[in-house]
Amino acid sequence: MRAIVIREPGDADVLEWTQVPDPEPQPGEVVVAVAAAGVNRADVLQRQGFYPPPPGAPDYPGLEVSGTVAALGPGVTGWTVGDPVCALLAGGGYAEKVAVPAGQLLPVPKNVDLIAAAALPEVVCTVWSNVFEVAGLKEGESFLVHGGGSGIGTMAIQLARATGAGRIACTVGGERKAEACRDLGADVAINYRTDDFVAHGPFDVILDNMGAAYLPRNVAALATGGRLVVIGMQGGMKGELDLGALLSRRASVHATGLRARPVAEKAAVVAAAGEHVWPLLEEGKVRPVVDRTVRMEEAPLAHRLLEESGHVGKILLVV
Amino acid sequence: MRAIVIREPGDADVLEWTQVPDPEPQPGEVVVAVAAAGVNRADVLQRQGFYPPPPGAPDYPGLEVSGTVAALGPGVTGWTVGDPVCALLAGGGYAEKVAVPAGQLLPVPKNVDLIAAAALPEVVCTVWSNVFEVAGLKEGESFLVHGGGSGIGTMAIQLARATGAGRIACTVGGERKAEACRDLGADVAINYRTDDFVAHGPFDVILDNMGAAYLPRNVAALATGGRLVVIGMQGGMKGELDLGALLSRRASVHATGLRARPVAEKAAVVAAAGEHVWPLLEEGKVRPVVDRTVRMEEAPLAHRLLEESGHVGKILLVV
Repeated sequence: MRAIVIREPGDADVLEWTQVPDPEPQPGEVVVAVAAAGVNRADVLQRQGFYPPPPGAPDYPGLEVSGTVAALGPGVTGWTVGDPVCALLAGGGYAEKVAVPAGQLLPVPKNVDLIAAAALPEVVCTVWSNVFEVAGLKEGESFLVHGGGSGIGTMAIQLARATGAGRIACTVGGERKAEACRDLGADVAINYRTDDFVAHGPFDVILDNMGAAYLPRNVAALATGGRLVVIGMQGGMKGELDLGALLSRRASVHATGLRARPVAEKAAVVAAAGEHVWPLLEEGKVRPVVDRTVRMEEAPLAHRLLEESGHVGKILLVV
Repeated sequence: MRAIVIREPGDADVLEWTQVPDPEPQPGEVVVAVAAAGVNRADVLQRQGFYPPPPGAPDYPGLEVSGTVAALGPGVTGWTVGDPVCALLAGGGYAEKVAVPAGQLLPVPKNVDLIAAAALPEVVCTVWSNVFEVAGLKEGESFLVHGGGSGIGTMAIQLARATGAGRIACTVGGERKAEACRDLGADVAINYRTDDFVAHGPFDVILDNMGAAYLPRNVAALATGGRLVVIGMQGGMKGELDLGALLSRRASVHATGLRARPVAEKAAVVAAAGEHVWPLLEEGKVRPVVDRTVRMEEAPLAHRLLEESGHVGKILLVV
């Protein structure tokens, strides 16, 4: 098969669509013939050499795909060759085929086409596990997501709206994204270039991808009992935490990632996403937001587009 | 009645045992005739002018007392004048009488004498709400408490042991405290003057009173999925948080306090302490640890003893 190989750590041009050995399904694994793969910031970090795949994962980038079941490893039940599926991966999605533990597969939801389904696994599992499981966003609570126009942002806004959150806010870098976020259900889209999100608080739950750069202001924007969940560090890792401010709010700071979790925990997250979010997708209350599709061999272009941050929703690579 | 009045912010000598108006029970409140009051670090901060009582609370220091019910306000049921009780307060415990919302009272447990019961409310409610409710310490999980010889420390060690925690560690400042902590159930007592607690980790739950000074090492000592709960800031408020280290552990930092919570939340914490910890006290599996008792008019001495940190367990003021 062919896959995107990272020739050496570097800029987008190090991504090369080239011939590699086919994956063999191990016990409990399914091989998926890839239709499309989602592009994530973690893939850019991996390309730059900062985020190596966990032990046992394929070397190629790609944390989510859609496609059809191509082969079943020993002991797999419940899936049949040809089934349309999407999958959360520890790596290897930028390829014609990928082997994945069966617990990380979900069916393509009714009302979602096969290509667009590649936009779902990483964002749905990330948003569900962080906003609803870790932070426990409840009906009526206020919610802020940074990067409202990102894949994560567009899904977080929709899921918060669909589950009855109170005031929903996001930060964005411009008016086109602000409008898209309001269309998806955000009450307020705050332009971070001209406005301070703290003034729009307090928030019961904040989902953050900026890390250190936003830490003091995120804490300042928390409500009493508020929960800040950090899932990205585009603004650095080491920040100042004012424990006095945290204590006066009786608040908490959480930092989590999906990729390094053990297979059983990933399966539990995928199962929860299937149980809670798939019905909302099938009823049309939540939808994948796809900015554009790019051919797999043009992965360097897809990475450049992601790095320029002009997109709203997901960029997908199609085989 | 008489109470300890803070003449002006300052050192221990500003505490003065003097005549003040008697408290009147408001609807839903009980007046307790104080037998003994626990001395807490928060009282020292209040004396220094850093920790004013919340709105509506008495001006006098004191967050916990034991004594007998002296009067019932309108609408109070379930208590009778003369009942031996202990109480969690928002302030006012250094006095002959104090009015307290009925939901913050608990009976003096069987097997505990009336004076020693003053050692219970603040430490039991703090440890229960933080270690078991906020951090969710589970059977078999490892636990570290800083200041093992403090009132909080001596209760946290015993409750972790009684509820089936795995490895229990504490930090201490000397061998006398180390021995006392091991007697109470600690597997390891780490002398913070000569040893680094990080080397004894990782820990699923850490209960911290040092704040900023310990923040980087506390995060480094957390296990995967670990929870750090900061309840004191003897080492400063603003510390460096390494979100990368937190994320790689999928861990969280919580900061909470009891004093500023609304009355209904305090009542819920007190009720949970009564439900979960009182049976352990009555079965003798957990006991109040009293370092010494000091007469109420000698409150300045009690504060100096607390500030010197030579004690193991609680210092109590007796009327």
